[in-house]
Amino acid sequence: MTQDDTNTRPTLRDVARHAGVSLGTASKALNKAGTLRQETREKVLSAARELGFRPNDLAQALHRGQSFTVGLISNDSFGRFTMPIMEGLETVLHEAGIALFMCNATDDPEREKRHIDQLLGKRVDGLVFTGRRADRRPAPGLSLGGLPTLYVFSQGDEPGAPCLLPDDEGGARLATEHLVSLGRNRIAHVSGPEDFEAVRLRRRGYEAAVPTLDPDLVLHGPWSEAWGREAGARLLALPRKPDAIFAGNDQIARGIVEALRERQVGIPDDIAIAGFDNWTVMAEATRPPLTSVDMNLKTLGEEAGHRLIRMIKGEKLTGTTRLPCTLVPRASTQPTA
Amino acid sequence: MTQDDTNTRPTLRDVARHAGVSLGTASKALNKAGTLRQETREKVLSAARELGFRPNDLAQALHRGQSFTVGLISNDSFGRFTMPIMEGLETVLHEAGIALFMCNATDDPEREKRHIDQLLGKRVDGLVFTGRRADRRPAPGLSLGGLPTLYVFSQGDEPGAPCLLPDDEGGARLATEHLVSLGRNRIAHVSGPEDFEAVRLRRRGYEAAVPTLDPDLVLHGPWSEAWGREAGARLLALPRKPDAIFAGNDQIARGIVEALRERQVGIPDDIAIAGFDNWTVMAEATRPPLTSVDMNLKTLGEEAGHRLIRMIKGEKLTGTTRLPCTLVPRASTQPTA
Repeated sequence: MTQDDTNTRPTLRDVARHAGVSLGTASKALNKAGTLRQETREKVLSAARELGFRPNDLAQALHRGQSFTVGLISNDSFGRFTMPIMEGLETVLHEAGIALFMCNATDDPEREKRHIDQLLGKRVDGLVFTGRRADRRPAPGLSLGGLPTLYVFSQGDEPGAPCLLPDDEGGARLATEHLVSLGRNRIAHVSGPEDFEAVRLRRRGYEAAVPTLDPDLVLHGPWSEAWGREAGARLLALPRKPDAIFAGNDQIARGIVEALRERQVGIPDDIAIAGFDNWTVMAEATRPPLTSVDMNLKTLGEEAGHRLIRMIKGEKLTGTTRLPCTLVPRASTQPTA
Repeated sequence: MTQDDTNTRPTLRDVARHAGVSLGTASKALNKAGTLRQETREKVLSAARELGFRPNDLAQALHRGQSFTVGLISNDSFGRFTMPIMEGLETVLHEAGIALFMCNATDDPEREKRHIDQLLGKRVDGLVFTGRRADRRPAPGLSLGGLPTLYVFSQGDEPGAPCLLPDDEGGARLATEHLVSLGRNRIAHVSGPEDFEAVRLRRRGYEAAVPTLDPDLVLHGPWSEAWGREAGARLLALPRKPDAIFAGNDQIARGIVEALRERQVGIPDDIAIAGFDNWTVMAEATRPPLTSVDMNLKTLGEEAGHRLIRMIKGEKLTGTTRLPCTLVPRASTQPTA
């Protein structure tokens, strides 16, 4: 069937026949290559127009040595963080006429190798790696032969590998400074597991902005609402309670909010709360809606697209770049009265 | 730079030179095409092995008229529902040596047209459309020339277009039957907007399984926790309260659970609650954790991959197929005592 379908679309051969020239001449004319008489070239172009010939990118690619394709390899199973990155990346590449192959390598290095091999076979012009967490990832066990390669929300093992990450430390500082600006000075920090680089960076941002640092007010646990509820209860049991809490993500923040609500603590009047991720569906359903730090992942994806295009054009980019986060204030830190 | 990088990998030309044959002969040998002496063929293959030549899918594609690529067009911005579908689809296609182009058309028909045009230019072997909701979508404003095309979690406008959808009605029946099996007989249904086909089908499944149908117990509103909280309060204000509630999605279910908790209603002892979507992060954070219907979207994506491969091989598939949902029971319907 494929064969028949393909034949319903005019091919280069049809154009050549229609123009009364050889296949090679038709190819040269359509690819603007080689030397041809102007008259011949125009005869081919007009035949192509008449037949509604769709220029075949594959043939053009072979001619120019560029495939106008790029591969995206994710070990996130296309999760919540990868989605907006993919969206931004795809938008920018599409505008440049580049199509994006998506490969889900999960966490299986063998699968990743097969994916890369497939992409190299397709002569992609570049590769983007992305991941579930922004931590360093092992180098793909394959030589990429100098192919333009970029890491986004993920870090390459190779020294100098170009990486694009959100500025976790800056985002945490923003949230903490916002709480300080409300006049709070006993600000707690409830976050995720310390083996995440993002957790350590967010803590550093918090520590840089908090007026006084009290180790009793810093708690680490899993990334879950249940941990947020537990931590909320623990903080309320302290002899000197906090007047604000900055949570390492929105799930933890939501758990804290629920623990406080159930104990009739006023939010934000008694305790103001800010989260991280600006996961809208979560932040907006929280009562009161949650102030949160947005990592601007779509912008991160767009910037990855722009940088990869520069690399494909021949520019050398190296090192880690962190893009700024923004604060999205909602009622959990802003009294409506 | 691209040029240099490309040149560090051995090309067909290098293999031909190394084997001392023409480019055409090398191509025939590597593509197992045409008639060549066995000796010549082996000379080329051994040269390819020695140089570490990576078969160039592009060249092979031109030769065989198949590109081993497929396009996925989503108007969901790669959202929560599309993700598992993409994952299943990509896994199956990857195993068949087919790479997946991903295109985010959002809801812009012009952008979708440009995407399809780009994909046709790349001579994809097939197209998969997917969407934010399973409703009928306008036909792409372009002739696809008989290209194998499949809709998943989305419906084509063309009569007979092959569509793969979850069995919403069957899933709703499963959840309602589960509540009936617990001895409940005043079962309410709180769902989303009636202009969603999925909402009408889930309601039909509920109506088919519910012991007695009371119009006071069926409520429609937006897909949100806030609506769930409001509907929960309304149901508790009825003279004859329900003893179970089947919610149209997990966000609504979570809102209902919170409204009931705040009014000291025992879940599931007084009122059992089931949701739809099995959105794990939501269902597991609910207190108690939420029984929910799983649409098995990853399986839907895998099945889409298998069917598209059959279509590419020449099989004609038409019409809508609905795949079964499964029930995931949790504490909101199962007393632990």
